[in-house]
Amino acid sequence: MDVYISGVGMTKFGRSKEPLEKMMAEAASSALKEAQLERVDAIYMGVMNVEEFVGDSNFATLLADTLGLTGVPSTRVETASSTGAGAFQSAFYAVASGHMKNVLALAGEKMTHLPTAKTTRILSEVIDRSERRYGATMPALAAMIAQKYAQEFNLSPMKLEDILAQVAIKNHSNGSFNPYAQFRKIIAKEDYLKSQMVAYPLRLYDCAPITDGASAIILTSEPTPIKVSGIGHATDTAAVRHRTSFTSFNSTKEAALKAYTMAQLNPSDIQFAEVHDAFTPFEIIGTEDLGFFPPGEGWKALEEGITHLRGKLPINPSGGLKSRGHPVGASGLAQLVEIVYQLRGEAGIERQLERAEIGLAQSIGGLGNNNLVTILEQSDRERMMGEGWSPDYHPDIKVSKKRISPPPSEGVGILKTFTTLYATPEGFRSPLTLGFVETEAGEVVMACNPDYRSPKKLKMEKKVYLKTREGLYVFKNFTLWNRLKHWFKGLSKSS
Amino acid sequence: MDVYISGVGMTKFGRSKEPLEKMMAEAASSALKEAQLERVDAIYMGVMNVEEFVGDSNFATLLADTLGLTGVPSTRVETASSTGAGAFQSAFYAVASGHMKNVLALAGEKMTHLPTAKTTRILSEVIDRSERRYGATMPALAAMIAQKYAQEFNLSPMKLEDILAQVAIKNHSNGSFNPYAQFRKIIAKEDYLKSQMVAYPLRLYDCAPITDGASAIILTSEPTPIKVSGIGHATDTAAVRHRTSFTSFNSTKEAALKAYTMAQLNPSDIQFAEVHDAFTPFEIIGTEDLGFFPPGEGWKALEEGITHLRGKLPINPSGGLKSRGHPVGASGLAQLVEIVYQLRGEAGIERQLERAEIGLAQSIGGLGNNNLVTILEQSDRERMMGEGWSPDYHPDIKVSKKRISPPPSEGVGILKTFTTLYATPEGFRSPLTLGFVETEAGEVVMACNPDYRSPKKLKMEKKVYLKTREGLYVFKNFTLWNRLKHWFKGLSKSS
Repeated sequence: MDVYISGVGMTKFGRSKEPLEKMMAEAASSALKEAQLERVDAIYMGVMNVEEFVGDSNFATLLADTLGLTGVPSTRVETASSTGAGAFQSAFYAVASGHMKNVLALAGEKMTHLPTAKTTRILSEVIDRSERRYGATMPALAAMIAQKYAQEFNLSPMKLEDILAQVAIKNHSNGSFNPYAQFRKIIAKEDYLKSQMVAYPLRLYDCAPITDGASAIILTSEPTPIKVSGIGHATDTAAVRHRTSFTSFNSTKEAALKAYTMAQLNPSDIQFAEVHDAFTPFEIIGTEDLGFFPPGEGWKALEEGITHLRGKLPINPSGGLKSRGHPVGASGLAQLVEIVYQLRGEAGIERQLERAEIGLAQSIGGLGNNNLVTILEQSDRERMMGEGWSPDYHPDIKVSKKRISPPPSEGVGILKTFTTLYATPEGFRSPLTLGFVETEAGEVVMACNPDYRSPKKLKMEKKVYLKTREGLYVFKNFTLWNRLKHWFKGLSKSS
Repeated sequence: MDVYISGVGMTKFGRSKEPLEKMMAEAASSALKEAQLERVDAIYMGVMNVEEFVGDSNFATLLADTLGLTGVPSTRVETASSTGAGAFQSAFYAVASGHMKNVLALAGEKMTHLPTAKTTRILSEVIDRSERRYGATMPALAAMIAQKYAQEFNLSPMKLEDILAQVAIKNHSNGSFNPYAQFRKIIAKEDYLKSQMVAYPLRLYDCAPITDGASAIILTSEPTPIKVSGIGHATDTAAVRHRTSFTSFNSTKEAALKAYTMAQLNPSDIQFAEVHDAFTPFEIIGTEDLGFFPPGEGWKALEEGITHLRGKLPINPSGGLKSRGHPVGASGLAQLVEIVYQLRGEAGIERQLERAEIGLAQSIGGLGNNNLVTILEQSDRERMMGEGWSPDYHPDIKVSKKRISPPPSEGVGILKTFTTLYATPEGFRSPLTLGFVETEAGEVVMACNPDYRSPKKLKMEKKVYLKTREGLYVFKNFTLWNRLKHWFKGLSKSS
């Protein structure tokens, strides 16, 4: 059964004094009003971590009751930071099954009331446990991915900085036109450069902010002008170190492949997209994973203005997570609300795109391991392709790195990527240098480098000396001294 | 599209040293093996509060990865203590939509590693915030419901005690035959009477234990011997005080109505059922809400042996939550695993029912406000009813009590029900007497009674004196002194 959209709504993102359920009720009311409904057959509501952010459980029930929809089935859905898209997907299947006619997908998060260190700790719980033990945060992992991207595609540190700044500047500019955005001010490169370093090379302006907000969409089996064309979802390894690649997300590629296949569309058919830019490098990587640009060339499209608001393929016309804000549970659904506004031509004169008949949203859960891709389309759009048409998107998906255990406790390794983290979580000294090191046995491990306060002497894809200390891996530059020690050890073992 | 079951699995419930994801992987492996599958199209996994019990977030991803199903879409579903049934329902719609062929519903919880006071606090977060402020716990609310049931249906305290003991004795006896059960010892009435009072009149043996465990079911669009016939879900008010009745759950009745309607069945067609007995009185109320017995008569059926293992309508052949154990997220799915074992004739010689062609499971989320009812049936069972058949189940559903605000700050009220709580949550003095009081304006409020350490002098449906202290309602017996004070106040106001 085909699924359509009959109403959307969202709160202004930012700091809110309202309790979470009131914010979500506000978004839901707008959507219900647009759909001219007083009741729905079910609610699928997404919150990422209401237990720790708000201190409540059984929130699906509280929400139905707050909405005045006491009695209506209400289910909480969670897929980490893609939760909003996850709630939309569950609502989609409920309608597509034919068992329900009108379903409310609703998502929100309340985060700004807590101290930043606590929020950082809660957000870090999405990270693989053993990587978390090193003090790895989301920005730290994103920074290591950015570093690797630069190394793999031969971008100098200055070039990388310039590209990331461009993402931030573009999205802040787009967001300045969005009345729902948390930040509505444009920023210049010098503002970007002045913002504090969070995890080298990522600055504060490379990271989506901490935000309160809610978004809502009504899905229905009754035809409306907006149709759900494609939906795709995939996971990846919990640990980043188990990935085959640090510069692309398998979970985006698999989810996109499913969504394009279901929609019978190619990446080149997409006219605009909302791409999960929780960190600026993720927008670049996202546009490559989605098949819009070849690997390593997403940044060129940005430089050429292709992904700008008036470019050929606008990315994040809403301002993205970067400027609209990132209430973690709500963002995935807010992206779809923006797509609907654009498809309807209701995005406002400054933000409205010229070509907006088909749009895509990509949402990332965790550190790129629970991602969803959704394609929405004007229902009356005429398809160009004839019979026998097949999509030209064939992404290279290699799910998981071979895991070798037990890993060697010390020896020589290759430093795959690294970062110096300045905003460390509770209990960790700042700055903290972290890296991924490939051991001689071919296993990639996370390691810290407590001696190096500056990342300047470290080089990716070069040898490092790896040892263990208090159950953690520690890596050091492969100095003459280390070389000698290593050689003597080998000698004494073989004798 | 019809939905079938091709595999089930569960861990032994009890205390486990394994991490939660390993327990869930064990249950999933059994189910996958039964279904002869190595991969599924999606995973819907239920955990109620993995954030606080285990300290992890993004658990759906971790789980797919742990199962060796890296890449497979994985979504976390939560409906409080009915989470396992909620995960099954989401999996059902995914298959019913025709977009997926084989879907794994998986549920678990790990609870025993925490101190009981912390577990109680975490479990209490499902309760309405303002009721929680009084120190109300799940046993406290269940106890007030039990008290009200006795008063409404004229059961003496001793009779109530006897009935509740009978539920516990029956379910422990059933559980003694279940290799997956946490408790496999039969208990006698004297054991019951010796168990400590948790919240008058509920003893430890009236409450399901704290448990670790996991359960799994594979749903498929390919016909198998077991079919999903009916599924229903409904919510009720977050606050218990806003209900129209304290002795029956609207959410069960609405969910059952949907499930019976979808299955085109009557309560009298059901041959056996798993009923959510987190507290012994809930089994009695459940059998009434599901239409098996008229309101106020569930206890008679128990006394007559109808709901016994060899009775006409066996309830909780597995031993129920009471004896199998209650890993909150897993129980709703474990009930369905038991139904499947019975339908297949694989429950073991002692536990296997003679008539087991169609079974029902009812799962309660929160304090009866997010309930699900699921009906499973042998696929080749011949239906008895002809055309034009309609179900004879017409439950009386009145969703929500009129809410009056602002409520009067003090005055005379009627004590609807009460309990004395002995196992109080952190920060509350034990014992603590709590009650629901109906004010003169017709609003029901929660109130505490700090002076009364023994519930003996309190009478339900009698006048009490209500005042506020530190923002909480306090109620006292309507003594001559209170009467006089109240009368003088009225006098001084009117003058």
